Amino acid sequence: MCAKIILSINAGSSSVKVSVYKAKGKAEDPAELAVVQVAGLTAPPATLTYDRGDEHVRNQRIEGVSSQEDGFRYILDHLTNDKGLPELTNKEDIEFACHRVVHGGDYTRAQVIDVATYHHLEELSDLAPLHNAGALTIVRAVHSHLPSATNIAYFDSSFHSTMPEHIRTYPIDPKIAKRNKLRKYGFHGISYAFITKAVTTYLHRPVGALNIIALHLGSGASACCIRGGASLDTSMGLTPLAGLPGATRSGDVDPSLVFHYTHDAGKPSASSSKALHITAAEDILNKQSGWAALTGTTDFGAIMASDAAECTLATDIFVDRIAGFVASYYVKLAGRLDALVFAGGIGEKGAELRRRVVEALECLGFELDAARNQGVREVEGVVVDVGKSGARHGVLVCRTDEQLEMARGCVAEAETFRSRSGVA
Amino acid sequence: MCAKIILSINAGSSSVKVSVYKAKGKAEDPAELAVVQVAGLTAPPATLTYDRGDEHVRNQRIEGVSSQEDGFRYILDHLTNDKGLPELTNKEDIEFACHRVVHGGDYTRAQVIDVATYHHLEELSDLAPLHNAGALTIVRAVHSHLPSATNIAYFDSSFHSTMPEHIRTYPIDPKIAKRNKLRKYGFHGISYAFITKAVTTYLHRPVGALNIIALHLGSGASACCIRGGASLDTSMGLTPLAGLPGATRSGDVDPSLVFHYTHDAGKPSASSSKALHITAAEDILNKQSGWAALTGTTDFGAIMASDAAECTLATDIFVDRIAGFVASYYVKLAGRLDALVFAGGIGEKGAELRRRVVEALECLGFELDAARNQGVREVEGVVVDVGKSGARHGVLVCRTDEQLEMARGCVAEAETFRSRSGVA
Repeated sequence: MCAKIILSINAGSSSVKVSVYKAKGKAEDPAELAVVQVAGLTAPPATLTYDRGDEHVRNQRIEGVSSQEDGFRYILDHLTNDKGLPELTNKEDIEFACHRVVHGGDYTRAQVIDVATYHHLEELSDLAPLHNAGALTIVRAVHSHLPSATNIAYFDSSFHSTMPEHIRTYPIDPKIAKRNKLRKYGFHGISYAFITKAVTTYLHRPVGALNIIALHLGSGASACCIRGGASLDTSMGLTPLAGLPGATRSGDVDPSLVFHYTHDAGKPSASSSKALHITAAEDILNKQSGWAALTGTTDFGAIMASDAAECTLATDIFVDRIAGFVASYYVKLAGRLDALVFAGGIGEKGAELRRRVVEALECLGFELDAARNQGVREVEGVVVDVGKSGARHGVLVCRTDEQLEMARGCVAEAETFRSRSGVA
Repeated sequence: MCAKIILSINAGSSSVKVSVYKAKGKAEDPAELAVVQVAGLTAPPATLTYDRGDEHVRNQRIEGVSSQEDGFRYILDHLTNDKGLPELTNKEDIEFACHRVVHGGDYTRAQVIDVATYHHLEELSDLAPLHNAGALTIVRAVHSHLPSATNIAYFDSSFHSTMPEHIRTYPIDPKIAKRNKLRKYGFHGISYAFITKAVTTYLHRPVGALNIIALHLGSGASACCIRGGASLDTSMGLTPLAGLPGATRSGDVDPSLVFHYTHDAGKPSASSSKALHITAAEDILNKQSGWAALTGTTDFGAIMASDAAECTLATDIFVDRIAGFVASYYVKLAGRLDALVFAGGIGEKGAELRRRVVEALECLGFELDAARNQGVREVEGVVVDVGKSGARHGVLVCRTDEQLEMARGCVAEAETFRSRSGVA
């Protein structure tokens, strides 16, 4: 039996995004029927964005929606009431709800969320309180509003479970590391799994032979070293804070810096609650830093386009740190790689950023084709080649799609999930 | 007028080391007359180690010495009472006392320590309480026991004052960064200055044309990217904690890690005092981590020689992190460099570590000559070539000498220092 309707749900701290898919058979990608997003939950009024075929709604103000649960309920009503979406008229049409969960601890693959899994995810939230809370709220909402659907958790960390011990281990007391689960986990893994498959297909390589360095660059940014189709290293760490700077994240800083930033580093932050223990330090480094702190805007496109000194500085920092990670991963692959791959909002749209990064890496054999780099938007397809012909290594842009990656996983494993959820 | 006797003083937390030099003229290196060290100050009984010509004392137990000031006074008595050291029979023979100070804030060069400088150094200790306190204690001891000597501070951070803004800036709130002096400073700079001159001489290059990647690997370890003879980037940061792991230092970890290590991260550590504000976090990451935490020993030679799983892990981690920094600096130099240079205790003695690191970097064009790599001890000279003939880039070992570097600076700038100290 094929899956019926699959929802792929990505809950951020102030938004809920749902993509609606219809399974078409085990060997085929599910068809995307609609994408709906409610944003601005923490800064009301919330807004609705909706795309279904030729119907488009952009940032329409909606009233009375101020929590993630409200947002999800609103989305559900919107979808079931849309006459143009006959595949989803009853809640019971939805068989699977896929949830993007940032921190999956030791989970190496997607999990059906039953009571035991849910409690384990709650425990894991201690490691990533800023990142997992949104997803858990939505899981509860789905459970109460869609009792017949099966909830599946997809983890951003799972793809990196192949990292070897010497890469995932921090040089700290191993007893405390083990007890408190302190190691490098890595994130953006749903995206890196998509990228790996997409580039494998594009290059007609067996997945086990694919060596790439992938950059997922968005308001959160990371780099990943992929050897033989598996994660060998990545820039994020115990939490998504480590590695590259982001819109509001510092990325790597001297681990003692925050204690010289404030005397209250270890105290609970204002966004802390009884259930969520967030220190002032984590709040500062995750939410009050990054290029927004340097320039006043989270919009990296605007920063790249400006010649204000602080924007040039933010760009120079980002390019420098990205090039550093790529270089270190290049050496990990012993220089044997198929391509450098740009993905994520900034990675896909930022032609000038790509130019700067690849220029910084020229001595390793990466070169862009200037025209193709500028013309990515005009080219269809999931992967676009922007490298110069004849260069030692390729450069690609990949339109990564975490929502589709989750829905695909659901189609592929539908039977397993049904048997585990007891609905088979 | 030439300087008379110059003392180069390196005060660690539990030891004081003093090298005695006699100036021989402005164009010549000062002659090293003796080296004396008192160690074990925090774990009495303290011990004396002394080398002068053919006279050698090794770890001789000494009584009644339990502070840095005691240690310095003991050293002074030992030197002035040594009949074999006629150049130093009176305290007044000592003209300059050079102090290695770890954190120099914005100082770009050595400073005569007058009252104003001393107070500024005290203020800087807030940035590096674990690292600057020992030096300040000795400065006070010299001031009271050697009133006629001029105290000069040499900073480990000064060499890195050439780092460009986008490399030294952290992506955090720039107002707070400015107010609290939060930026990358970098350390081991006295050593890197020595290495730069030594390699320049060895390769017969003008110093302004020297591009190298230098590794100072000891119980504290760092990497430095040197372009045109000046520091372009280095792995340590606001404090010596950032970057590579060390004997008891974690090096780079997710900046939020320590808050998941202990709930008391921001509280004062046991080694904190009214004058010294050290958080539990800084104590954990600086003193209870690194390869000692992983293996139980600070002796990296023993770790390299062992096949115990925890020693293999510690070695693999160290090699991986070193190779990562070298790769990122290689790209910063656009692949145009004269040599990779190993220095520091582990860098000089660790033939097997060099083999592992260079092997990891082979794809960049670094190769060792196995026999010369093994035979470094048998070769005289400050710089030893261990690279394979015909390899794209050279590999050198440099016997760095921070004590000599300070004494040299003193000879070169003796007149300036005299005029500034009002003794001219």
